[in-house]
Amino acid sequence: MQAKILVIHGPNLNLLGRREPEIYGSATLSEINEMMTDHARRLDMALTHFQSNHEGEIVEAIQTAEETFDGLILNPAAYTHTSVAIRDAVLLLTMPVIEVHLSNIYKRESFRHRSMLADVVTGQIAGFGSGGYKLALIAMAELIETPDQP
Amino acid sequence: MQAKILVIHGPNLNLLGRREPEIYGSATLSEINEMMTDHARRLDMALTHFQSNHEGEIVEAIQTAEETFDGLILNPAAYTHTSVAIRDAVLLLTMPVIEVHLSNIYKRESFRHRSMLADVVTGQIAGFGSGGYKLALIAMAELIETPDQP
Amino acid sequence: MQAKILVIHGPNLNLLGRREPEIYGSATLSEINEMMTDHARRLDMALTHFQSNHEGEIVEAIQTAEETFDGLILNPAAYTHTSVAIRDAVLLLTMPVIEVHLSNIYKRESFRHRSMLADVVTGQIAGFGSGGYKLALIAMAELIETPDQP
Amino acid sequence: MQAKILVIHGPNLNLLGRREPEIYGSATLSEINEMMTDHARRLDMALTHFQSNHEGEIVEAIQTAEETFDGLILNPAAYTHTSVAIRDAVLLLTMPVIEVHLSNIYKRESFRHRSMLADVVTGQIAGFGSGGYKLALIAMAELIETPDQP
Amino acid sequence: MQAKILVIHGPNLNLLGRREPEIYGSATLSEINEMMTDHARRLDMALTHFQSNHEGEIVEAIQTAEETFDGLILNPAAYTHTSVAIRDAVLLLTMPVIEVHLSNIYKRESFRHRSMLADVVTGQIAGFGSGGYKLALIAMAELIETPDQP
Amino acid sequence: MQAKILVIHGPNLNLLGRREPEIYGSATLSEINEMMTDHARRLDMALTHFQSNHEGEIVEAIQTAEETFDGLILNPAAYTHTSVAIRDAVLLLTMPVIEVHLSNIYKRESFRHRSMLADVVTGQIAGFGSGGYKLALIAMAELIETPDQP
Amino acid sequence: MQAKILVIHGPNLNLLGRREPEIYGSATLSEINEMMTDHARRLDMALTHFQSNHEGEIVEAIQTAEETFDGLILNPAAYTHTSVAIRDAVLLLTMPVIEVHLSNIYKRESFRHRSMLADVVTGQIAGFGSGGYKLALIAMAELIETPDQP
Amino acid sequence: MQAKILVIHGPNLNLLGRREPEIYGSATLSEINEMMTDHARRLDMALTHFQSNHEGEIVEAIQTAEETFDGLILNPAAYTHTSVAIRDAVLLLTMPVIEVHLSNIYKRESFRHRSMLADVVTGQIAGFGSGGYKLALIAMAELIETPDQP
Amino acid sequence: MQAKILVIHGPNLNLLGRREPEIYGSATLSEINEMMTDHARRLDMALTHFQSNHEGEIVEAIQTAEETFDGLILNPAAYTHTSVAIRDAVLLLTMPVIEVHLSNIYKRESFRHRSMLADVVTGQIAGFGSGGYKLALIAMAELIETPDQP
Amino acid sequence: MQAKILVIHGPNLNLLGRREPEIYGSATLSEINEMMTDHARRLDMALTHFQSNHEGEIVEAIQTAEETFDGLILNPAAYTHTSVAIRDAVLLLTMPVIEVHLSNIYKRESFRHRSMLADVVTGQIAGFGSGGYKLALIAMAELIETPDQP
Amino acid sequence: MQAKILVIHGPNLNLLGRREPEIYGSATLSEINEMMTDHARRLDMALTHFQSNHEGEIVEAIQTAEETFDGLILNPAAYTHTSVAIRDAVLLLTMPVIEVHLSNIYKRESFRHRSMLADVVTGQIAGFGSGGYKLALIAMAELIETPDQP
Amino acid sequence: MQAKILVIHGPNLNLLGRREPEIYGSATLSEINEMMTDHARRLDMALTHFQSNHEGEIVEAIQTAEETFDGLILNPAAYTHTSVAIRDAVLLLTMPVIEVHLSNIYKRESFRHRSMLADVVTGQIAGFGSGGYKLALIAMAELIETPDQP
Repeated sequence: MQAKILVIHGPNLNLLGRREPEIYGSATLSEINEMMTDHARRLDMALTHFQSNHEGEIVEAIQTAEETFDGLILNPAAYTHTSVAIRDAVLLLTMPVIEVHLSNIYKRESFRHRSMLADVVTGQIAGFGSGGYKLALIAMAELIETPDQP
Repeated sequence: MQAKILVIHGPNLNLLGRREPEIYGSATLSEINEMMTDHARRLDMALTHFQSNHEGEIVEAIQTAEETFDGLILNPAAYTHTSVAIRDAVLLLTMPVIEVHLSNIYKRESFRHRSMLADVVTGQIAGFGSGGYKLALIAMAELIETPDQP
Repeated sequence: MQAKILVIHGPNLNLLGRREPEIYGSATLSEINEMMTDHARRLDMALTHFQSNHEGEIVEAIQTAEETFDGLILNPAAYTHTSVAIRDAVLLLTMPVIEVHLSNIYKRESFRHRSMLADVVTGQIAGFGSGGYKLALIAMAELIETPDQP
Repeated sequence: MQAKILVIHGPNLNLLGRREPEIYGSATLSEINEMMTDHARRLDMALTHFQSNHEGEIVEAIQTAEETFDGLILNPAAYTHTSVAIRDAVLLLTMPVIEVHLSNIYKRESFRHRSMLADVVTGQIAGFGSGGYKLALIAMAELIETPDQP
Repeated sequence: MQAKILVIHGPNLNLLGRREPEIYGSATLSEINEMMTDHARRLDMALTHFQSNHEGEIVEAIQTAEETFDGLILNPAAYTHTSVAIRDAVLLLTMPVIEVHLSNIYKRESFRHRSMLADVVTGQIAGFGSGGYKLALIAMAELIETPDQP
Repeated sequence: MQAKILVIHGPNLNLLGRREPEIYGSATLSEINEMMTDHARRLDMALTHFQSNHEGEIVEAIQTAEETFDGLILNPAAYTHTSVAIRDAVLLLTMPVIEVHLSNIYKRESFRHRSMLADVVTGQIAGFGSGGYKLALIAMAELIETPDQP
Repeated sequence: MQAKILVIHGPNLNLLGRREPEIYGSATLSEINEMMTDHARRLDMALTHFQSNHEGEIVEAIQTAEETFDGLILNPAAYTHTSVAIRDAVLLLTMPVIEVHLSNIYKRESFRHRSMLADVVTGQIAGFGSGGYKLALIAMAELIETPDQP
Repeated sequence: MQAKILVIHGPNLNLLGRREPEIYGSATLSEINEMMTDHARRLDMALTHFQSNHEGEIVEAIQTAEETFDGLILNPAAYTHTSVAIRDAVLLLTMPVIEVHLSNIYKRESFRHRSMLADVVTGQIAGFGSGGYKLALIAMAELIETPDQP
Repeated sequence: MQAKILVIHGPNLNLLGRREPEIYGSATLSEINEMMTDHARRLDMALTHFQSNHEGEIVEAIQTAEETFDGLILNPAAYTHTSVAIRDAVLLLTMPVIEVHLSNIYKRESFRHRSMLADVVTGQIAGFGSGGYKLALIAMAELIETPDQP
Repeated sequence: MQAKILVIHGPNLNLLGRREPEIYGSATLSEINEMMTDHARRLDMALTHFQSNHEGEIVEAIQTAEETFDGLILNPAAYTHTSVAIRDAVLLLTMPVIEVHLSNIYKRESFRHRSMLADVVTGQIAGFGSGGYKLALIAMAELIETPDQP
Repeated sequence: MQAKILVIHGPNLNLLGRREPEIYGSATLSEINEMMTDHARRLDMALTHFQSNHEGEIVEAIQTAEETFDGLILNPAAYTHTSVAIRDAVLLLTMPVIEVHLSNIYKRESFRHRSMLADVVTGQIAGFGSGGYKLALIAMAELIETPDQP
Repeated sequence: MQAKILVIHGPNLNLLGRREPEIYGSATLSEINEMMTDHARRLDMALTHFQSNHEGEIVEAIQTAEETFDGLILNPAAYTHTSVAIRDAVLLLTMPVIEVHLSNIYKRESFRHRSMLADVVTGQIAGFGSGGYKLALIAMAELIETPDQP
């Protein structure tokens, strides 16, 4: 049976591709989503995409995720560094959660070096641009197949 | 032409699979290397593996890497948190460098949260066990093909 | 005349009883609300319950609270540690405000030890599970009756 | 059978009601103790009161508490912020321990924001003046009746 | 042609004039907006006002601001000190952004001394009450006319 | 009657316009002073300018300011971050004091983020280049006219 | 009428003169007390001396001091740096309290630079050896005579 | 002549063996004292044991120790981390002082990592359970015999 | 022979008595100087007074002090907290130096708790208003007479 | 059967006895090793000594230690404070590990107060000079005989 | 053509040679200046010496230095650690600036380890006594000849 | 007799001249060594060069240096900031040690501002590129000739 994966994009990611392409790449969010959907199909997974600039909406998307989905790919963007509420929602999940960052957050302002999520997700992927999402899909496929492997 | 990739494993990784398998997995380092070599072949890349417990040897392996290789996959293990010398060697490279950690270092002692390398590598992958190396190979293949993409 | 009390439950508390019952107890939020309403009736108080995962909605519920209510019982959950906006809203109130936490927040991650609210509420109750709400009701009844007592 | 509760009042609390009534209320310690004894009787509990200005005496009262009592209500006053010895004595207990503070300690000097006890007691009640003791009695009654409930 | 300016008022500013007038002045938000509109007209600028208690709504108002407006006057109130998401949205703008605070934030709690925005806006004005908005309008008029002057 | 305003320029501001014009603008201090005098006249205020590189001279200028002047516009430059003596002198004044910075000090070295004056002046204006002085004059005119408005 | 002054000597001061005379002087505590009594008589004051190594005893001596005495001279020795309980007892007094240290505590270990008492006493005298007590007596005489002078 | 050694056990050590035997071992304090006395006899030393929960009593025991004893074995327990008074008393001694901890204090809460005594004693022994006292006796015998050896 | 004492008053002390008399007392600097001269005469000492708002002038007054004077009474005011240069000048002296503060600096802003001088002077006197100078004179007389007493 | 113990001496310990004998004693490393071997024989243990100035060599000696040895006595010298790699190697061992320091590291520079090993070894012995090794041997003999005793 | 070099000596250096010769050497400032002038002549450079105890005078000497001189040798003494004003003046220069310290400032109080200048000068020389000036002259000669060499 | 000087180059300095010439200059290490040897000959000194990327090898080179050499010029590169082992080896030397850095380390990452060596060497020279070695040779010649001069 096809695994179902939720992909959550945090605040300001709706503007991807339209600004600062030298940092975030020139692909728009819908191009990235399309690319991800294609790639997921090859891995026999179905994707649902969700973008929000509202902390509370992201919390709620995570709260109900496990009812429908088998895994979560999460790029919390700015909320990575400030949201205990998103952390608490992630703590409620038992399915795999992969944190993705487009840019290498350690090359940026020091307040971006602290992640409120890093110690409650399964793994992190950072610095590979939109390619990081593809890596996350491959990692997710493996985690769902063989979940107990350390 | 086949890309050549150097894989460096830092201190204590020579004991992989023999101890604490619940944290680091049950695969030995040579099994991991074999798995990586297989996977690299499918991506049309050739791997060279190097493990050392000596900071100076890792520094030297990095110093000369660019003469022979097109990319570096680096798991500096304990030296991640203490070595300015390895950082300085990485700073000399212009080819892609991917930092890999088997475990989620943010779930461990607080001194492991600081990486001396994170801001000088291309990207990081952490928390996926030996599967993280496979992701690194896929990421490296993409980076070598289209290096300028953010 | 019957005192009117607003009870605000912060983010992720809508999932109470469904997950991690060993930490938060097995009672669901509606069971807790029912228990509180019963207990409030005995103390001759009327309760209104409000749960939200949105910082802004909680801010607004507090802003207008004093028009309708005589006291506020507030479990800000994750926003306890991050929200200056909720603090600012509480600062606008002159009626009693009681901060309640289900678990002992000092037994958890260190970022949970800092409360943005502790110094602007009347009092705190923490660590008694859902029983803490009952204590808050009793305390509120007393505060409304004899507000000037230190 | 009637539960037996020890109530420990820390340093300077013997002067309650005689000074700074705008902060600590106008009730003297013996008036508070009487009020507590009355209230405890209604909850079918018997109280023993103990006040000391000596860290060592408080340590010893806690050490032997479990031989005679079913619960401890503790207002360590100044020793809250400095005493590892009282913490160590509390760590020896398996019965419920409730920490009470008359004033909201977060409205005072920053060194009062750190409690050496907060993470080793069952729960805290702060900011309700002498009314906090009444809440502690109610909480204690519940904890003794249904100790395993989170 | 008349310049178009967006004015964003952050959380709790909808209550201006109704509480704590000794700190924030007795003018209501709509009085302030009216005063600003009058003053802007004299400077040949058209204003649009937006108030929200929701971080996500403010993020979205900023995201689309540059499509319609020539400048942004921003009083982020409580979100000044906590919102990386608003900072990230401001980073997307190339038009002038002026940060305004009614009160002198350095006379208040220490967590208000840190601004997440100060280093990404054009300039700050603080401590002049509602008069600060008038100064911001004058500054904005100048910045739009001669944008390149340091 | 015409209000009299003292304008104090701190260390190194005597070199304005001659160096680093990309940061501080190309106007010289005397051009700025002339521009300010013009602008003040329109606001019916008379200006006196004082520049010094000596902390003690600035202290003394402030000490005697209230004998002659109705307000102080102060750009303490480097002494902003180090001078308790200037702070103490400002504390002696009861007339309005406005702190002006040409550049956005939060975009510069971290030791420039701390101001020894910010919490003892009426308000701050920063980041508008020499235009900031004009804003300060307008703010001063308003403060002198209606001093009690928060 | 003769003023009555309590002099409290903290822990280890009972050994004065017997050890480390190069730091604390060669006078024993009873010699110092005698010298103080003599000097007090000339200032028309009567002294009572109290030495204790027990924090709780010092707390109690301070608690009851105001019933009998007109002023307190306090050398809390080691408890200067650790005792919130003594601080709280001093906070209860309205009569003058002078903190005396024999040695210059700023020349010693850094934990001796923090005093838990400095901000709640009338004044401090440090570094003058046993001569500091004489100064304290003279200061006390003045404070009792003209208490309201800043 | 037989050396005389004082052994001081700090707060809560009177309960050894009765609680948390998995941390502190199952031997009671009197069993430990007996074992120590036996072992001391074989090393030709005579022991005196002293246990107190009172900081002041421990201070006084140390103050007079050198009159009677040739060495001090000190387990200050909780006072290790908080007592400047005990430190000051130890500073008065010229005979050898050995600090013993039953458990490895570095495996416990971070406030236990700081010792107020570590830099004023001769040496420390930690983590060997009650066996640590036996090591301390052997070390003491050697120190008394050949005191000047570094 | 009459001892000669230099008294240095730091920045803003020239305004003593004219402002904030509730903090600094109502005596002007010349009244204080006169009072000190009188008192010094009785102690058979001659005083020279020097006030400056300039760090450099105070440095120079201290540099040459030992050529003419037998002791220094120093109230460095604001420079207490910032001046390494004054500290370095004091380090050059071998005669007694007494640091005086009119107010209790520990009751004020936290940056006033750090003194750059405290560990290089003989002793400090703080919190006694202008009476502190009288104490300093008495202390100085004693120090000059019996300099070697600890 | 005779227990086999590995003794590892860290960097610069090969020079023992040749320099700074007032700190480290006058015994050379080979004299210490000989003394240890003698003492071990009496305790029926066989010793192997290893000294290295290379972090990597110490890591490797620890990695393979458990194949041959029953316990490890480790003086990591300078690497105590910097080596995560040695810590990781020690974490791989299940046999007893005793950390020995010749000098009292708490009397030295503050960076020597932090040990990267203290919380992962069985126990520490510090400050007894070369006598500390003898204590470690005795402790090791006991640990090997009765390993489960806390 | 002969290069012209300004040498600035900061506060208290006018007393060189007269005090604490064991730290600063026995040469007086004029002897050092003479030695430097001699040495400069051999390097074909002309020196101008300037000493001041006034921060403002040093600022002004630096401000105008580039009009007359080709390089600056600067020993800011105490102002090294506190003066942003001198830093700002140095930032205005484009010619080489060499920071010299007579003593090794890292062997002294910790507040001397921070230099406000280190990152804005060309290079530092510290710890060589007056010989450091000679090194600075040699370095300056080289910098002026081949300024672009890294 | 000709003085013998050891020059130690730390990790990654073997690559000098081959990479990042805009930071480290275009001279290779062997060109620098040659230049140094030439310059040393003129100062009548003989040089031995040693480069290593291994902390342990540098430790050992320093350990035995005093047997053969009269002075040490040390550029520890990355190990400057991390190596206690090299510090301990330097502590063993009594001959002059000069620390050299090619670049101005205060212009780089903040972890490079801390030197583990600065307080145990004779002096530092930083920021002069390879010219710094020449200065070190001149300084060394002087130190060897007149070692006792402060």
